[in-house]
Amino acid sequence: LTEPLTIALDAMGGDNAPRIVVKGAALARIRHPNVRFLLFGNEAKIQPLLKRKPKLKKIVSLIHTDKIVPGDMKPSLALRQGRGSSMWEAINAVRDGKAGAAVSAGNTGALMAMAKLTLGTLPGIDRPAIAAFFPTMRGESVMLDLGANVECDANNLVQFAVMGEVFARTVLGMQQPTIGLLNVGEEPVKGRDAVKTASTILRNTRLPIKFEGFVEGDDIAAGTVDVIVTDGFTGNIALKTAEGTARLLREFVRQAFKSSFVAKIGFFLAGSALRKMQVRTDPRRYNGAMFLGLNGIAVKSHGGTDAFGFANAIGVAIDLAAGGFNDRIKEEFGRLSETADDKPHAAAG
Amino acid sequence: LTEPLTIALDAMGGDNAPRIVVKGAALARIRHPNVRFLLFGNEAKIQPLLKRKPKLKKIVSLIHTDKIVPGDMKPSLALRQGRGSSMWEAINAVRDGKAGAAVSAGNTGALMAMAKLTLGTLPGIDRPAIAAFFPTMRGESVMLDLGANVECDANNLVQFAVMGEVFARTVLGMQQPTIGLLNVGEEPVKGRDAVKTASTILRNTRLPIKFEGFVEGDDIAAGTVDVIVTDGFTGNIALKTAEGTARLLREFVRQAFKSSFVAKIGFFLAGSALRKMQVRTDPRRYNGAMFLGLNGIAVKSHGGTDAFGFANAIGVAIDLAAGGFNDRIKEEFGRLSETADDKPHAAAG
Repeated sequence: LTEPLTIALDAMGGDNAPRIVVKGAALARIRHPNVRFLLFGNEAKIQPLLKRKPKLKKIVSLIHTDKIVPGDMKPSLALRQGRGSSMWEAINAVRDGKAGAAVSAGNTGALMAMAKLTLGTLPGIDRPAIAAFFPTMRGESVMLDLGANVECDANNLVQFAVMGEVFARTVLGMQQPTIGLLNVGEEPVKGRDAVKTASTILRNTRLPIKFEGFVEGDDIAAGTVDVIVTDGFTGNIALKTAEGTARLLREFVRQAFKSSFVAKIGFFLAGSALRKMQVRTDPRRYNGAMFLGLNGIAVKSHGGTDAFGFANAIGVAIDLAAGGFNDRIKEEFGRLSETADDKPHAAAG
Repeated sequence: LTEPLTIALDAMGGDNAPRIVVKGAALARIRHPNVRFLLFGNEAKIQPLLKRKPKLKKIVSLIHTDKIVPGDMKPSLALRQGRGSSMWEAINAVRDGKAGAAVSAGNTGALMAMAKLTLGTLPGIDRPAIAAFFPTMRGESVMLDLGANVECDANNLVQFAVMGEVFARTVLGMQQPTIGLLNVGEEPVKGRDAVKTASTILRNTRLPIKFEGFVEGDDIAAGTVDVIVTDGFTGNIALKTAEGTARLLREFVRQAFKSSFVAKIGFFLAGSALRKMQVRTDPRRYNGAMFLGLNGIAVKSHGGTDAFGFANAIGVAIDLAAGGFNDRIKEEFGRLSETADDKPHAAAG
């Protein structure tokens, strides 16, 4: 990151806004010295927070907005009533070229609806999807959709597969990422119709995709494939189930070490190794879900994250924007769609 | 368990049948001295295994069956071609009163289809569901459906909620179990239509159900509610995602302790405490999914489990059969349906 890069932040989104947004931006500034921020939100609330972060204040332009999109507002209503809100203005800054990416910890559905309307979708994409990284036995995998589309048909799933494949190749630098469709069994007869149809399309496509067929829930953490494709309902629940399970296991480890004096000594000795393990599975490290398929970069942070987590979401946005990744995805997707006789969209018709 | 109880075993179901079935039965015999088994399967393959387990052999009646239901056979085909198979005969033994419960590690869909056809469903239940226990921060929770119904409407979900509630009350002895519907957010506007409609029905029912509304994926391990209700597609993926994540975390702990000499000493000292933790989260301990809503007890073991896991599935069947739990669920459900003005089934009409 050599040139200054501007990131637009929705300062009012999330459970602890604007506090963790400002604190997160301050943390991100340390990690990425060349970044600048556009902060959209309530000036009266944000100014006192910025006063405590003088170094951050120097690289921030604060733009006052009156409106906030509530966390429980329907996306359709947010589109009508959310104009001029902190979220809306952050996305608009990306569309207008004032920022390279927008980050919000607010209402996911509203953010996606606004991003879709304002930035538009890439050619060949009916619906953008939310993607994020997972730690696995083999390293990291990408999963999408994580909640943008609670209902998906076969074409949506096929488009997610193509987006995920190009993303893994161009952003993660994988040579030939493997793709799997999340299902309740590996056998072709199992699962929902949309999943089965999508599998048939992906098996028969001449697109250069390494499609491995169906994978199951335990394949996510196993790292069986590089890209896991699913609908937004299932993906969201799988993501949160994994997070909850990781939290439970970490708690069990903590309890195990408190269970006896000898175990406590063991814990003391193994402390640094265990902290590494904790760091490795810290969900805040994986905070920052990418909206794929849009003409612009928007990153969604967990609503309940802390400053450390929000800083990571900013980091994801910086990585995507600095590398020009979205343009590469766009090019790649366009090329794939043009060169293939059987476009994923048309193949299901 | 004072009176002898007979359990019917599909000896040919699962990845490592009949070996782990026989070994699992031998383990279960030690834990439950008063149990007897009907073993259905290929005599030529099972007899040599039984020879090595003379104590088990004494309490086993082996009934030869020729046919096996393949793991990838469609349920509809299994119903037509599976008559006389080891799975079919095991369920038939329950219907005929020769066994108090049937256990199989075979094809889940086929087992459910056969159990539904042969045993029938309880009054008021359109579709049976698969339920299992989860370890949580607060103890244990029950989740259903875990894979019997990949598509569920609002009525199915409401019936699962009632079954789960009665199950938690009568089988687990909970005074007032709390119920949650798995969704992608806690706000009423989020999620799929079936989930939203089911929530409205459960909120407005006069049935004595403590419905807590929507819960998310991370609420499963948190133990936010005692009973988690979802469709079989989502439930199956959540279950396997949790299992996979637990496996990943255990592996990370193992690696952490191998990372340095000092950590190894720490591991040695904390060994017994950690083993307790491993035991607590061992998925084999939670093996044995219950089919709820049937006129008879059928328990499904993981297809890939080992003898220890299969013995646990037998244990679940024994617990259910010995306590006459299914009769209590039937009574309770019948009573609930009769006394309530707004039956869950009719309320959505």
